[in-house]
Amino acid sequence: MSLLVVGSTAFDTIETPHGTAVDCLGGSSTYFAIAAQLFTKVQLVSVVGSDFPEHHRKLLTDRGVDIAGVETKPGKTFRWHGRYATDMNSRQTLDVQLNTFGDFKPKVPAEWRTTPFVFLANGSPATQASVLDQMHGVKFCVADTMDLWIEHEKQGLLALCKRIDGLIVNDSEVKMLTGKNNLIQAGREALKLGPRLVIVKKGEHGCFLFSNFFHCALPAYPTETVLDPTGAGDSFAGGFMGYLANCEQVSLANMKRALAYGTVTASLTVEGFGVDRLARADRETVDRRYQELQQFVAGA
Amino acid sequence: MSLLVVGSTAFDTIETPHGTAVDCLGGSSTYFAIAAQLFTKVQLVSVVGSDFPEHHRKLLTDRGVDIAGVETKPGKTFRWHGRYATDMNSRQTLDVQLNTFGDFKPKVPAEWRTTPFVFLANGSPATQASVLDQMHGVKFCVADTMDLWIEHEKQGLLALCKRIDGLIVNDSEVKMLTGKNNLIQAGREALKLGPRLVIVKKGEHGCFLFSNFFHCALPAYPTETVLDPTGAGDSFAGGFMGYLANCEQVSLANMKRALAYGTVTASLTVEGFGVDRLARADRETVDRRYQELQQFVAGA
Repeated sequence: MSLLVVGSTAFDTIETPHGTAVDCLGGSSTYFAIAAQLFTKVQLVSVVGSDFPEHHRKLLTDRGVDIAGVETKPGKTFRWHGRYATDMNSRQTLDVQLNTFGDFKPKVPAEWRTTPFVFLANGSPATQASVLDQMHGVKFCVADTMDLWIEHEKQGLLALCKRIDGLIVNDSEVKMLTGKNNLIQAGREALKLGPRLVIVKKGEHGCFLFSNFFHCALPAYPTETVLDPTGAGDSFAGGFMGYLANCEQVSLANMKRALAYGTVTASLTVEGFGVDRLARADRETVDRRYQELQQFVAGA
Repeated sequence: MSLLVVGSTAFDTIETPHGTAVDCLGGSSTYFAIAAQLFTKVQLVSVVGSDFPEHHRKLLTDRGVDIAGVETKPGKTFRWHGRYATDMNSRQTLDVQLNTFGDFKPKVPAEWRTTPFVFLANGSPATQASVLDQMHGVKFCVADTMDLWIEHEKQGLLALCKRIDGLIVNDSEVKMLTGKNNLIQAGREALKLGPRLVIVKKGEHGCFLFSNFFHCALPAYPTETVLDPTGAGDSFAGGFMGYLANCEQVSLANMKRALAYGTVTASLTVEGFGVDRLARADRETVDRRYQELQQFVAGA
């Protein structure tokens, strides 16, 4: 089934101990879409400036991503400049220019308003809610968020939590959201806020999935060459949602598999700068890594 | 088969956000022995002072741990006093008194010198090597170490690595030992130092096992109430070695199972202060948690 994603498109300048990439294609919805299109048809709602080049659009459309929902506004595209620490586990934002993304009012094209799978990439809870206001008959909706909204838009975020099926956050965010330091406690507490599914991303340590029926954990794919962690979380979400949207049903077994596919797409992302490695991946590579990941996980 | 452990016995004073325990039974070999005795016959080589009370000996012997190798010397038992940070992931050592442990020269009783399974708990590489010098026909020997020895006794540690089958370290230690920041690279690099098995402990994030045939990862058991992390690593090693010593052979499949049993014994330890919770565990509880852990791990 089709999958709609709403979020940012950006030019990223990324510095890591392995090098620097200037003005490469980035943004949460971009990473998500490129990961998700490996599994299903993706509809992208975003905004760019008049400086957004044709070859970036082509990269997306060549992969079958429908960009009819990407609005081009006068002005510049969102820009982000960040630098990673030596161990790649922390990063510093050196510059942010919101530009046309600053007053992003997502407009879902009329023919996409009944798309059954929806991913609300990181954005203000009000913006995310405005997308749901435009949709009818959503089957499965998952949202991402960040510390900024947990701190400053808590009420809006809590209201959103009651309207979504799943919430994807990282470990520090779920602790901040719930006030619990133990991640298992935090995940269970987050379920009480509304979503029937809470996924906690832990970077190199893998992820947790919490539901009212079961909890589970999955280690990360054993990547040896992390060149650039940017977009790992968004491409994790893209692999997860893309695989699930392509399944007959949103069952617990399929969710576990989707978690592994998300882990694989994230592993591809971090092995190149920006979307470079992810965009070169095909389904065969993804399936091979999925099998390797199953072998790597030490369950009986 | 029998399992010999050589390491410290201590009085620990532990402060965590959940409370304080004063002068409780601790030490690496104690945690190890109490975990391992759930699976196999354990022989303990250690040293205590004349202040070491009968009820601590009884706690060990009641559980079938053979303490014939615990030497009592004039003076005081090793004392450690530590305080954990709010998130329990870091700790500060407030006081250390090595006392009788300061010049620990392990003497393996004559009848234990052919014990097939050996665990060298954290200690100087020279002390650990002196144990191997006393043994004949060791089948499977694993050693623990720490940052102190990696920094100051590197040559001795590297020499020891060529004499052991397995090395158990935590994530920061394996990075320090190998100079690699990526844990997968670090684990592979550590294998080149000699051991055919390298286990990397990551606390709440679980563990990795590296061998020349396969690598694997296991998440931690989803414990919600961490009262005191002290001894988690040693009881992990105890569960791992204890289970393995009780197996027909040291196969890859048994190593994976042993990893899960180590994970379970560590989870019991952290749910109480000192050895309190671990010492109350029986094999039935351990086996139930083992099954729960298998369910929790999201492999296909």
